[in-house]
Amino acid sequence: MTKIVDDPETFAASALAGFSRVYERYVRLVKGGVVRSTAVPPGKVSVIVGGGSGHYPAFAGYVGPGMADAAVAGEIFASPSTAAVARVCRNADHGGGIILGFGNYAGDVLNFGVAAERLRAEGIDVRIVTVTDDVASAPADRHLQRRGIAGDFVVFKVAGAAAEAGLAIDEVERVTRLANSRTFSFGVAFGGCTLPGAKDPLFTVPKGMMALGLGIHGEPGIRDTDIVPARDLAKLLVETVLAERPAGARRAAVLLNGLGATKYEELFVLWGAVEGYLQAAGVDPVAPEVGEYVTSLDMQGCSLTVMWLDEELERYWLAPCDTPVFRRGETFHTQPAAVRDRAEDEAPTFGLATPASQEGAGCLAGILDAMVSALGEAEAELGRIDAFAGDGDHGQGMRRGATAAREAIHQAVAGGAGARSALAVAGDAWADRAGGTSGAIWGLLLRSWSGAFTDDAAPTGADVVSGARLALDDVMRLGGAKPGDKTLVDAFVPFVASLEAASAEGAPLKEAWAKASATCEEAAQATAPLSPRLGRARPLAERSIGHPDAGAVSLALIARTISVRL
Amino acid sequence: MTKIVDDPETFAASALAGFSRVYERYVRLVKGGVVRSTAVPPGKVSVIVGGGSGHYPAFAGYVGPGMADAAVAGEIFASPSTAAVARVCRNADHGGGIILGFGNYAGDVLNFGVAAERLRAEGIDVRIVTVTDDVASAPADRHLQRRGIAGDFVVFKVAGAAAEAGLAIDEVERVTRLANSRTFSFGVAFGGCTLPGAKDPLFTVPKGMMALGLGIHGEPGIRDTDIVPARDLAKLLVETVLAERPAGARRAAVLLNGLGATKYEELFVLWGAVEGYLQAAGVDPVAPEVGEYVTSLDMQGCSLTVMWLDEELERYWLAPCDTPVFRRGETFHTQPAAVRDRAEDEAPTFGLATPASQEGAGCLAGILDAMVSALGEAEAELGRIDAFAGDGDHGQGMRRGATAAREAIHQAVAGGAGARSALAVAGDAWADRAGGTSGAIWGLLLRSWSGAFTDDAAPTGADVVSGARLALDDVMRLGGAKPGDKTLVDAFVPFVASLEAASAEGAPLKEAWAKASATCEEAAQATAPLSPRLGRARPLAERSIGHPDAGAVSLALIARTISVRL
Repeated sequence: MTKIVDDPETFAASALAGFSRVYERYVRLVKGGVVRSTAVPPGKVSVIVGGGSGHYPAFAGYVGPGMADAAVAGEIFASPSTAAVARVCRNADHGGGIILGFGNYAGDVLNFGVAAERLRAEGIDVRIVTVTDDVASAPADRHLQRRGIAGDFVVFKVAGAAAEAGLAIDEVERVTRLANSRTFSFGVAFGGCTLPGAKDPLFTVPKGMMALGLGIHGEPGIRDTDIVPARDLAKLLVETVLAERPAGARRAAVLLNGLGATKYEELFVLWGAVEGYLQAAGVDPVAPEVGEYVTSLDMQGCSLTVMWLDEELERYWLAPCDTPVFRRGETFHTQPAAVRDRAEDEAPTFGLATPASQEGAGCLAGILDAMVSALGEAEAELGRIDAFAGDGDHGQGMRRGATAAREAIHQAVAGGAGARSALAVAGDAWADRAGGTSGAIWGLLLRSWSGAFTDDAAPTGADVVSGARLALDDVMRLGGAKPGDKTLVDAFVPFVASLEAASAEGAPLKEAWAKASATCEEAAQATAPLSPRLGRARPLAERSIGHPDAGAVSLALIARTISVRL
Repeated sequence: MTKIVDDPETFAASALAGFSRVYERYVRLVKGGVVRSTAVPPGKVSVIVGGGSGHYPAFAGYVGPGMADAAVAGEIFASPSTAAVARVCRNADHGGGIILGFGNYAGDVLNFGVAAERLRAEGIDVRIVTVTDDVASAPADRHLQRRGIAGDFVVFKVAGAAAEAGLAIDEVERVTRLANSRTFSFGVAFGGCTLPGAKDPLFTVPKGMMALGLGIHGEPGIRDTDIVPARDLAKLLVETVLAERPAGARRAAVLLNGLGATKYEELFVLWGAVEGYLQAAGVDPVAPEVGEYVTSLDMQGCSLTVMWLDEELERYWLAPCDTPVFRRGETFHTQPAAVRDRAEDEAPTFGLATPASQEGAGCLAGILDAMVSALGEAEAELGRIDAFAGDGDHGQGMRRGATAAREAIHQAVAGGAGARSALAVAGDAWADRAGGTSGAIWGLLLRSWSGAFTDDAAPTGADVVSGARLALDDVMRLGGAKPGDKTLVDAFVPFVASLEAASAEGAPLKEAWAKASATCEEAAQATAPLSPRLGRARPLAERSIGHPDAGAVSLALIARTISVRL
């Protein structure tokens, strides 16, 4: 249980700041992450990794020569915001392009994905490689849909070595994908961790039992079973991981990873048996690692990872590296980097806008005002609904995001921004401040919607309607949710369809919107989830059955609020 | 709680074996410890560290160039046997002498102390430096009586660097003592750990509370208090450790150590505040370390260690080193060591003995037979008595030790050994197989007693009496217990006094022994402890009040058994 805390709200940021003080010879703190503090050759491909906090040494502990160039850190167990990903990437771009590596989770896929699009628009060549090593999370024929767990470490090690060797981005991407395609992990949990400020563990495992395949955030596993002796556990781990052994594969990078409170002595006892079973199966472990490489605070459990090596992967697995937690081979003789002032936090400036578009921006600011009021009133209720399926912070996140968006849009209006620019910065502010998946979705939604507007004219009713379609398309494409997944998409799809249909029939915007809003509300109430969802702690997911999705409910609330205002 | 176990009896040895497989590029496994697997320059001073297991990376994780030459590993939280210490030392001796470093605990002081005497008799120059950094365990004017906790790491780092730099043993000893004299630690615990195979934690801390100064094996602390925010905890740690700051001291090696289940993120949050308080007090942390350096399985808690640097200590603190868990500075280019076959486990051979002395050895073997029977019958009762004050394994340890001694003495008799040699090897076998403090005491007791005998003649009554005095003196000198400490000494002192008095009055041995045995029994029953003892888990120590000391009771039992036999 986490006991050393000041303010749970700032826990992850404080931890990252403390880390960067201890390891200033490796890293420099930027908002939302760390970048190498040592000089990097111009033109080198950057390997940038990240995800939620609470998994140290993942991911900040991997930053250094031979491994990662930077790490992005979200709140505990929560994806970093799109803005944080983009900011860290801009600070760690050396002109050779960026490999963006992270474990396969919905929030991360969304935030890193949206950030990658933004960076590409700025001319940076960004390639995404998600790690998908957890064999418990999807069958072999859906390898790329699996979760990423301790395999992160071995895949990032190879990616970092390939980049350090001077390969071009196409090659680093190819090697990283190859590494991921040959990486398989399986884990067990004996007990859950407690988040900072929380009173109860995120999940529990019945006394004397172990949960097979339970994820590093408490995601559903395969089944619970009695705790077995170390030798039998070793056999189970080895057999499960070896089930997908490629034909002829013999040499393997092997990682026996502890999740935090399963300690070194236990891991070494287990390793003795694991190594025996591997050798009996004709596997040669190459430079195996046993210890804490991807943790989950003080969770009890461990996992076995195997990356099947070919000549190329073995070379990169064994290549020198020097990071806060992992050092291999020769010393790197590094020089401090010249700190580039990227002026990230300066207020944005806006291009020329017509008075009509500026007036439109003012109207949008008024809508944001109304949204903030409505979300403020509904915060507790949204939290209550969210608590059935999630961690109960949806209302808080929406209020925080909308408030940040309102501030940003009023500043933009004061700065003379047109409708398009004003709504875009509002979206960015929402994503950056709200955090989590819903923050990313709403940031994306506003920014995409703004694409239908211009800074030359006031938005027309038709612009609003086509903006809705743009927003829906991007949310579905980047967010990855489909209708029926019990998310905001379930309410957003009928909303846009209804809005388009009414408009096509010639209804004025106010009338079309009112119709769409009613449809949306109905659809939101129909989202009572029927089954647990990926990425949620199991007991919470089970509690969600029969309750609507909070994201869909808040979308409907916002649609109704706007309806009144139009 | 420890969950990955095969046989609790072999847990520590299995963990060490697994560790040495993972890190074979650093270490080679010998019975009871690990030694460097890489070549060491002849004549280098060896730094050999050790203690109980369960504290990884202490102590095996410290072995490598620039730090330790070898580590001795006892059972979980139990001192290694004298024989293990001696064996590991012989395997890691490079001709320059040995610095034997360990935390200040009764069992370790005894076992390492007796081993050092044995090694010195073999011509190896051994110097003992105990680490005494825990300010909670004794006041400032008794610094050298304090327990050793995470300060082990910084003191051993300095010792290893001084030895690697080629200093002669006098100088390495001086620098190591200097490092210890300038090292201060203070810790808190939030919760206890569970030993392999145990159902309940070794100790508990009330919910919402933290125990100030509680030791790494659950030894009594200063007091319990409410858990405070990270900032206040930082202030408490810094103020307590800085209370003994030497005049003018400014630069310090600083270690913020986690005990196992207090995780990295918490430590980094805490470090942010600790660094601030240190700087505010005018302290410059030099190359601080934050992480798990001395653990206690999955105990929750942390400690702050400060070693005040002068120019010399700073040089050694910053010097390169390369161990499984800690690497600093330049790469060492090591070569595998030629493995020396020390033939440790060959049966001992004995010098010429007279038939009379051989016959005396046979009598001693008969006495050992009787002791094994008596201890076998009393095993459960001795365990019951021990459970009030300790971990309830006294009966088991005594039976195991006596059985090993009996085997050894019968082998010796069969090999033609005289009385002196036969009793000496019996003592060594006892210490090696029984483990713990009582094993070391009994091994020492038999070996010292044998010093009054020869291999030339049968032991006389006078020899037996003077042997008792030799044994008592060594047990008190090396064991460190004084009358009144509620140990075996409380029964042994009156036994020897009575034996000597009766002999001096001309009583034959049988009569004198019977008298001494009765005195011994009375004294043993009077040892019901009245207060908790150092080195015991608090709740157990409190439970011991009003019950006799198991070690004294088993001495009396053995005295009575021999009395019948004489």
